Amino acid sequence: MTFVIIGGDAAGMSAASRAKRNDPDLNVIVLEATPDVSYSACGMPYNIADPTRAMDDLVVRPAQVFREEQKIDLRLGHRVERIDRGLNRVWGRRSDGEEFEVAYRKLLIATGAIAPKLYIPGKDLPGVYVIKSLQDGREIKGYLADHAVRRVLIVGMGYIGLEMAEAFHARGMQVQMAKPRPGLLPWMPEEMSQVVKDELTSKGISLHFGARLTAIEQMDGGLRVVTDKGELLVDMVLMGVGIEPNSGIASEAGLELGPSRAIAVDRTMRTSDPEIFAAGDCADAFHVVTGKRVWIPLGLRANRGGWAVGDNVTGLHVELPGIVGSAVFKVLDLEVARTGLSLKEAQEAGFDAVEKYTKSASRAHPHPGSQIVHMNLVGDKKTGRLLGASMVGKEGVAHRIDSVAVALHAGMTVEQFFQCDFAYAPPFTPVWDPLLTAANQLLKQL
Amino acid sequence: MTFVIIGGDAAGMSAASRAKRNDPDLNVIVLEATPDVSYSACGMPYNIADPTRAMDDLVVRPAQVFREEQKIDLRLGHRVERIDRGLNRVWGRRSDGEEFEVAYRKLLIATGAIAPKLYIPGKDLPGVYVIKSLQDGREIKGYLADHAVRRVLIVGMGYIGLEMAEAFHARGMQVQMAKPRPGLLPWMPEEMSQVVKDELTSKGISLHFGARLTAIEQMDGGLRVVTDKGELLVDMVLMGVGIEPNSGIASEAGLELGPSRAIAVDRTMRTSDPEIFAAGDCADAFHVVTGKRVWIPLGLRANRGGWAVGDNVTGLHVELPGIVGSAVFKVLDLEVARTGLSLKEAQEAGFDAVEKYTKSASRAHPHPGSQIVHMNLVGDKKTGRLLGASMVGKEGVAHRIDSVAVALHAGMTVEQFFQCDFAYAPPFTPVWDPLLTAANQLLKQL
Repeated sequence: MTFVIIGGDAAGMSAASRAKRNDPDLNVIVLEATPDVSYSACGMPYNIADPTRAMDDLVVRPAQVFREEQKIDLRLGHRVERIDRGLNRVWGRRSDGEEFEVAYRKLLIATGAIAPKLYIPGKDLPGVYVIKSLQDGREIKGYLADHAVRRVLIVGMGYIGLEMAEAFHARGMQVQMAKPRPGLLPWMPEEMSQVVKDELTSKGISLHFGARLTAIEQMDGGLRVVTDKGELLVDMVLMGVGIEPNSGIASEAGLELGPSRAIAVDRTMRTSDPEIFAAGDCADAFHVVTGKRVWIPLGLRANRGGWAVGDNVTGLHVELPGIVGSAVFKVLDLEVARTGLSLKEAQEAGFDAVEKYTKSASRAHPHPGSQIVHMNLVGDKKTGRLLGASMVGKEGVAHRIDSVAVALHAGMTVEQFFQCDFAYAPPFTPVWDPLLTAANQLLKQL
Repeated sequence: MTFVIIGGDAAGMSAASRAKRNDPDLNVIVLEATPDVSYSACGMPYNIADPTRAMDDLVVRPAQVFREEQKIDLRLGHRVERIDRGLNRVWGRRSDGEEFEVAYRKLLIATGAIAPKLYIPGKDLPGVYVIKSLQDGREIKGYLADHAVRRVLIVGMGYIGLEMAEAFHARGMQVQMAKPRPGLLPWMPEEMSQVVKDELTSKGISLHFGARLTAIEQMDGGLRVVTDKGELLVDMVLMGVGIEPNSGIASEAGLELGPSRAIAVDRTMRTSDPEIFAAGDCADAFHVVTGKRVWIPLGLRANRGGWAVGDNVTGLHVELPGIVGSAVFKVLDLEVARTGLSLKEAQEAGFDAVEKYTKSASRAHPHPGSQIVHMNLVGDKKTGRLLGASMVGKEGVAHRIDSVAVALHAGMTVEQFFQCDFAYAPPFTPVWDPLLTAANQLLKQL
């Protein structure tokens, strides 16, 4: 049997490896458009921050290992352009221009997401980048090596924009950030996003809210960025304006799409065609808290989805319960994390939701070095259920969020969560962990 | 109504404050044997490590605040010696030698635990200490200030012994540790306790296993410690040989005792006499995983139990689900944590238990600064249920353990835990969190 996988990053290669491990006789063909497989895209900001590291450090497992040790038929530079479900075939074009055709018995679409540029004049000038693929990372790093880049504008203030702000700052560059709408990280309360804003501005990073780009022009001495709020002169522009599921070929093949035009999959990762699976950033998922379909593209789900597909094409039956959207990122000296629903998301999902913002010490009262842990918990007045959390702080955030994630998977009420027996030692937490303090405060509103 | 509380530390003062907040008219009398209330006993090692800090830094709220702001009748230096349940009265002796008598309508026994010295000749020599009360801490710190203490022997290798080893090491002292039995931290696998041993010995701390003390003698130039394995010459001896519930007066009053002679309480914290509550280190608890009574004296439970008593004496009805025994402590550069059952405890509780030891990176594959997270998960073959975890590592242990604690409270299977959607970012964790990797490995054994 031939199992064809379109896309050779997290989901695709997880599926390929898993399927091959389960069934060494399976013919597994991976068609990857770029020259790269299995790299840590999330590691790119940290790699770019350090001029001494090679970009290829981020390759988790080289193509050769997949081919020789795992006997996976990995074909790089193979861009699939069409799926014919009637003929069980995919067509595409190689990077050398030649067309190719491959027949499948089972197919996985793991085409990931794309990071579009703003569609404005000057978007393709030298020095204007997006960051999505390893090749993007190489180009940015190469540009930084070859040019005197002192000033950078980051368009967008999401995870990637903020991580890249840290990276450019670490390289001594003057960083500005712009977004057309007001509000940084709108899924957390204003007081908490202010903490992140303060961290950015205290390190000299300028934030321009409500600034919409209209053009970029090449000038002597830099790029002139024109916005509806005035002009900026910089040496580089990074567009981090969000990503979209790369679902074009799925849609053209008539597969059902879900939220944000991600490919709709069931709990076994099957699309509306039972012979075709989708996983990774191109696919949707069920949200454990709402039970509804969502598109929240994150690395763990991509790997997990790939594994599940690898199992399900080799005769096992794996159903994934779904996601809660746990995410963490670092912004300079801050850890920022979230899981589950924000207040707005909870209200939109029909919950009678309330939130409570608390500030707690990260360590016991007299212990030196304590920091503030800012925390927002969301709960449902009707059922008492815990719905979500967000956190910001200089320490103790990154792993604390997972305790809430587990509680969301378990469907715990805020009261049940408050009754959990957390570990305590003065260097790591007050006797009442910040999460318990927050839960207790939220309880008063339920 | 008069609510009398015996003991003014975590459980006692939590109960007093809570009861008074719920019912300002309640007459709350706290009888505390020592001159101290409401201090962070767990902070003592870190305080002793720093000669510049005053021991009274550890007082969370001074007696005056309880008296003046909260109107709690707090009587220091009042040691209760007898409870008469027929007369609803307690008798005792003040620190000035005078006897006293107090009548109660409701009573809370929050007498904590005692740290006995080994009963050997020389146990009361100057320079031989236990560490339990703030007064113990003051005496140790005073002795260190007044004497040239270069060499210390710590008897016992539990949490407190290990934390004190770090404290003495931080003060530049030469630290030795001894225990009569083999094995450090026997609740974790040998490979993991070896990591802790290596950390201790790499910092110059000597470990003597199988060494039973028989006498301590005053010598010119120090204390001669005689063991069945030879003699040691040191300047100070700290006995950290475990603690016992301070349940003498409860037992003499005919109240039922539970494991380790802790005072048996139900989920409302009532003893076998419904007018008498017990909370804190003198009381037992239900273990959420086994459903059985256990005595695991820890700070959070003491506070939580005190709160529950404060609620229950003021007309509310609070039932505590119980504990999972989550604990964390710092040993030099290591974080060490546990929750739930060890393999041995699980087997003794009747589970068909297996364990899996895994080593994972604390950060994503190419991220600098990654450390090893050593993890042991215990599961039940019969039900697939997650039963417990222990962890050791230089980072990422202290808060990760709480995710397991939440899963234990929720009664999750290992499979359900493995399906939880954890947060990922390269500086904080690999895409598969060490906990998920460990759960996946354990699954293969179930």
